[in-house]
Amino acid sequence: MSILAVGSVAYDSVKTPSGGNDDALGGALTYFSVAASYFASVGMVAVVGDDFRPEDRAMLDAHFIDTTSLVTARGETLRWMAEYREDMNEAHTLDIQLNVFDGFMPKLTSRDMQHPFLFLANIDPDLQHHVLKQMGDRPTLVAGDTMNLWINTKSDSLEKVIGSVDLLMINETEARLLTGEASLVKAARNLLSRGPHTVVVKRGEYGALCFTPDAIFAAPAYPLETAVDPTGAGDSFAGGFLGYVAATGDLTIDGYRRAMIVGSVMASFTVESFGLDRLSALTHADIRDRYKEFWKLTYFDGSGERELPSYMPTEAEGRNAIR
Amino acid sequence: MSILAVGSVAYDSVKTPSGGNDDALGGALTYFSVAASYFASVGMVAVVGDDFRPEDRAMLDAHFIDTTSLVTARGETLRWMAEYREDMNEAHTLDIQLNVFDGFMPKLTSRDMQHPFLFLANIDPDLQHHVLKQMGDRPTLVAGDTMNLWINTKSDSLEKVIGSVDLLMINETEARLLTGEASLVKAARNLLSRGPHTVVVKRGEYGALCFTPDAIFAAPAYPLETAVDPTGAGDSFAGGFLGYVAATGDLTIDGYRRAMIVGSVMASFTVESFGLDRLSALTHADIRDRYKEFWKLTYFDGSGERELPSYMPTEAEGRNAIR
Repeated sequence: MSILAVGSVAYDSVKTPSGGNDDALGGALTYFSVAASYFASVGMVAVVGDDFRPEDRAMLDAHFIDTTSLVTARGETLRWMAEYREDMNEAHTLDIQLNVFDGFMPKLTSRDMQHPFLFLANIDPDLQHHVLKQMGDRPTLVAGDTMNLWINTKSDSLEKVIGSVDLLMINETEARLLTGEASLVKAARNLLSRGPHTVVVKRGEYGALCFTPDAIFAAPAYPLETAVDPTGAGDSFAGGFLGYVAATGDLTIDGYRRAMIVGSVMASFTVESFGLDRLSALTHADIRDRYKEFWKLTYFDGSGERELPSYMPTEAEGRNAIR
Repeated sequence: MSILAVGSVAYDSVKTPSGGNDDALGGALTYFSVAASYFASVGMVAVVGDDFRPEDRAMLDAHFIDTTSLVTARGETLRWMAEYREDMNEAHTLDIQLNVFDGFMPKLTSRDMQHPFLFLANIDPDLQHHVLKQMGDRPTLVAGDTMNLWINTKSDSLEKVIGSVDLLMINETEARLLTGEASLVKAARNLLSRGPHTVVVKRGEYGALCFTPDAIFAAPAYPLETAVDPTGAGDSFAGGFLGYVAATGDLTIDGYRRAMIVGSVMASFTVESFGLDRLSALTHADIRDRYKEFWKLTYFDGSGERELPSYMPTEAEGRNAIR
């Protein structure tokens, strides 16, 4: 199945302990779309300025991403400047210039409206809702992300979006902020009661948790030699996750388990370089190899049926002895 | 096989957002020993004051723990007062009174020296080394833990201990502090070069990572409704880990993978109550059930051999389409 996605396309200037970049292609929607494009057909809804570089559009084209609704407006593309300090889990925004995104309200084409999957990347919840309303038939799956800015400034609009999505993807700190619960189990249950049937909590270098009413799945992050630039990791996770689900059409918890790993795979590639350098240059063999690495990273023998009884001493046996 | 363990036995007064306790039995060695006692025979080496309560010794006896070398000295048992605030991963020590532990240097019995496994729980590295030296034949496996206090104040003594252990268990922040490396992969490699053949990095509510020269294994922490009191979680982890390894004698990476999960199981029980309340009252069925829960929490289908090729579109196929 295919995915329509709305969110930000930006030029980012980011500093990390490994170095920095300047006006590099970024934005939540861009990371999402490129990650998802390895698995499924993706259409982007966003606006860029007339400074948008031809080579950036060419990269999207090379990933077979439909950019018909990536409109060009007079003015400058959104600019984001940020810095990561010691804690690579947190970006410190130094400056943001919305530019052409200020007041942007897209009109979907009839083609856009037919996608069975919809992803609302992190952006003003009014814009997310504006896109959702235009989808003719309700999509098979609507997933959405958000951030602390909207929790603090647009809570009513955000609540409408949360009530409309099937799958909410959210950072750990934002899940706590949005619910007032320190326990992620309680926070997830609270969020599940507001609309979504699935909540994915992203935890940066600690991986991600997937909550449904009946199950919890934990995916680690890939332990990297060097986390070069975490920008876009969460969006790449979402792209891998939803791309996999769209490709397989498997909406069961077992499908979601694999999707969590595919998401973690894509996020790990993003963190390995600045911007989209690594994510945009992957082969399917790269993805498959890292998926196998995740299997080795997490697999342990035993449903508990065979292994545990064989070593547990009974009350009478084997204790208090030198063996 | 059986384990000799040295470390602190204490009376703890702890405050957490869930409440608090007062002069409750604690200490790294106590958590370690009780957790390990469900799997293996354990002997404790430590000192308590003449205020040590008979019911606390009775609890250790009920777990078949050998307390011959848990000597009683004139004076008070070690006292620790601490507080957990919002971030339950970090204890803020309010007060510590070493009392009878001040200058304690145990003399092992000939029975103590015969245990094939030795665990050096977090305590003054001079004391850890003093115990290690007395073991006649070198034990089959020596494992050790430490903390930031010793990294900052006794780095030379600590370095000797690190050079002597096979398996180092250490907190994430302490691994970074000890190596100056922000990347845990680099930190672990650095620590592996100093002596141990295995490094386990504990990450509190985020689980733990096991590093050997050839493999990395990631265990999540069990997602709890309420983290009541994290005190002793890391020591319970170590007890479950080493108890399992001692019980099975399996020193391969596959044995360590299961040991990481058993450790995580035991840590999860500790966090569910204040002090040792829950940890000391487990049944083998409780342990088996939670082990299975960890399996459900982390299992995903696929070594990557079967699943991935079936959904990945080729370059020519399936993209840029509404499906």
